[in-house]
Amino acid sequence: MKTPDRVTITDVGPRDGLQNESRAIPLDQKVALINALSETGLTRIETTSFVSPRAIPQMANAAEVMAGIRRCPGVTYIGLVPNEVGARDAIEARVDEIAVVVSASESHNRANVNRTIAESLEGIRGIASLSREAGIPWSGYISTAFGCPYEGPVEAARVMEIAERLRDTGAEAIALGDTIGIANPRQVSEIVGRLFERLPDTPLRLHFHDTRGMALANVIAAMGAGASQFDGSVGGLGGCPYAPGASGNVATEDLVAMLHAMGVATGVRLEALLEAAWLAEEIVGRPLDGRVKRALPRPTAGQRATQADYVP
Amino acid sequence: MKTPDRVTITDVGPRDGLQNESRAIPLDQKVALINALSETGLTRIETTSFVSPRAIPQMANAAEVMAGIRRCPGVTYIGLVPNEVGARDAIEARVDEIAVVVSASESHNRANVNRTIAESLEGIRGIASLSREAGIPWSGYISTAFGCPYEGPVEAARVMEIAERLRDTGAEAIALGDTIGIANPRQVSEIVGRLFERLPDTPLRLHFHDTRGMALANVIAAMGAGASQFDGSVGGLGGCPYAPGASGNVATEDLVAMLHAMGVATGVRLEALLEAAWLAEEIVGRPLDGRVKRALPRPTAGQRATQADYVP
Repeated sequence: MKTPDRVTITDVGPRDGLQNESRAIPLDQKVALINALSETGLTRIETTSFVSPRAIPQMANAAEVMAGIRRCPGVTYIGLVPNEVGARDAIEARVDEIAVVVSASESHNRANVNRTIAESLEGIRGIASLSREAGIPWSGYISTAFGCPYEGPVEAARVMEIAERLRDTGAEAIALGDTIGIANPRQVSEIVGRLFERLPDTPLRLHFHDTRGMALANVIAAMGAGASQFDGSVGGLGGCPYAPGASGNVATEDLVAMLHAMGVATGVRLEALLEAAWLAEEIVGRPLDGRVKRALPRPTAGQRATQADYVP
Repeated sequence: MKTPDRVTITDVGPRDGLQNESRAIPLDQKVALINALSETGLTRIETTSFVSPRAIPQMANAAEVMAGIRRCPGVTYIGLVPNEVGARDAIEARVDEIAVVVSASESHNRANVNRTIAESLEGIRGIASLSREAGIPWSGYISTAFGCPYEGPVEAARVMEIAERLRDTGAEAIALGDTIGIANPRQVSEIVGRLFERLPDTPLRLHFHDTRGMALANVIAAMGAGASQFDGSVGGLGGCPYAPGASGNVATEDLVAMLHAMGVATGVRLEALLEAAWLAEEIVGRPLDGRVKRALPRPTAGQRATQADYVP
């Protein structure tokens, strides 16, 4: 069974997760969650999104979040930006890395940002220039890369083409997003394999939602095709805007637990991540979908002092 | 990516699922659920368990269940039996197949049936004789095959040895049960590979619980190692007696949805199975864990008349 020795994980909970909550989470709670994640050994945290507060009120205090968190050495704090205004704000807020998004399907891109894919790619050129000037790396998400809520199947060739455009514009890495949790392992294996053939020198990240319970199966398939970077969301924060009640991103702790059980290193301390997941659950005030967390009683403070007792 | 062309699924919901409900489900509801499953294209249903009603009151009316259901041609109705008394009852109730269980770990076997593994294997010889006389095939489940709630890791060599004993006693098939949902894909790949080497002519079934969200990932790993038979539980019925609140068996409809998306045939009509999953949810009166079901609105009667509309 093919796996890498080590996997790098990006926790997107504070952004992709909290953005999908129906109510905006107070600043201090966002900061507390990000600080907790910073202490887990995770090296990448998608911290916030520099979007219009009218468009996405959940992310209204992006600059305050960046100013409020305690930055840990070795952790990359990533800010999502939709346009050049956002990029300037993100740079001013001293993010370590910028993330941009474009959809693989026209109708989803239209619904998401009211632009054509070509217009989005053109806009990304402006963001890329600002990033370059500021000396900040950026990476490009391709959302609906495995299927679109409006158009259904998405051509793999279309995904390849957009990935190549992003790489040519200067993306340090490409991330494929399974926005609606429709990807299946065979498809993942094929697309990841093709992308590594086409862009062998560009790091690839996979962003799976667990809407249909296939996220970890897709991770196995992606590793089999050579992938070693994945997104997760602490606790399984977030949902699927196209399927109320359905799961969001795969829970980071479920991903970490599986990888560790398989002997794949992540650098993450699972017990600390589980604590962050319980904190995430407190913050949103409802049970989250992460499975490992539900399989364990929350440890008491005394048990936390001797953490080996409750590591699954 | 290695997959079989076709997978055979056993739905264990009416037995493994309902047995783990805190209250006993009325006879007519059990019968309705089994009848619904019989109409989905599933060819194997673990229908009930012929155990002492004092030990497991949820299964008290096993004979009435078998007498009450509408048997579909082509469907194998399986009865679990713990001992010769149960085997006689199951044969009298005209089950098509008998299932027996033995744990791979002494402490779990002791907790489960208050016997040593050797005593359980000896008891199975008696059941095997009765089955042979009645002309009914039987298969042997090895529970805690991937880990034990009391002892932790279980030696693969121990699993091989028990599997061989069961085969020598006349088992038509061996089923490995991940009773506490602790199996990981690498382990599954290794154990399945070793078992096919050791017993190349004995059909193998895998029974995964989704306690830690790894069930479908384990299915991918098992298929990669040559497996083509899996258990599921409609709706994700059941739980984990060692982790209150945690998930039970993988939801059959999630398994079917993934396999179909990958182009692997199951013979199951997913839309009919989803209806059975919604029925299961009604019967137990609480939301079940199956993911595909939660990602979709339940169709109206009108939509059900044109089922293509809502197949995911």
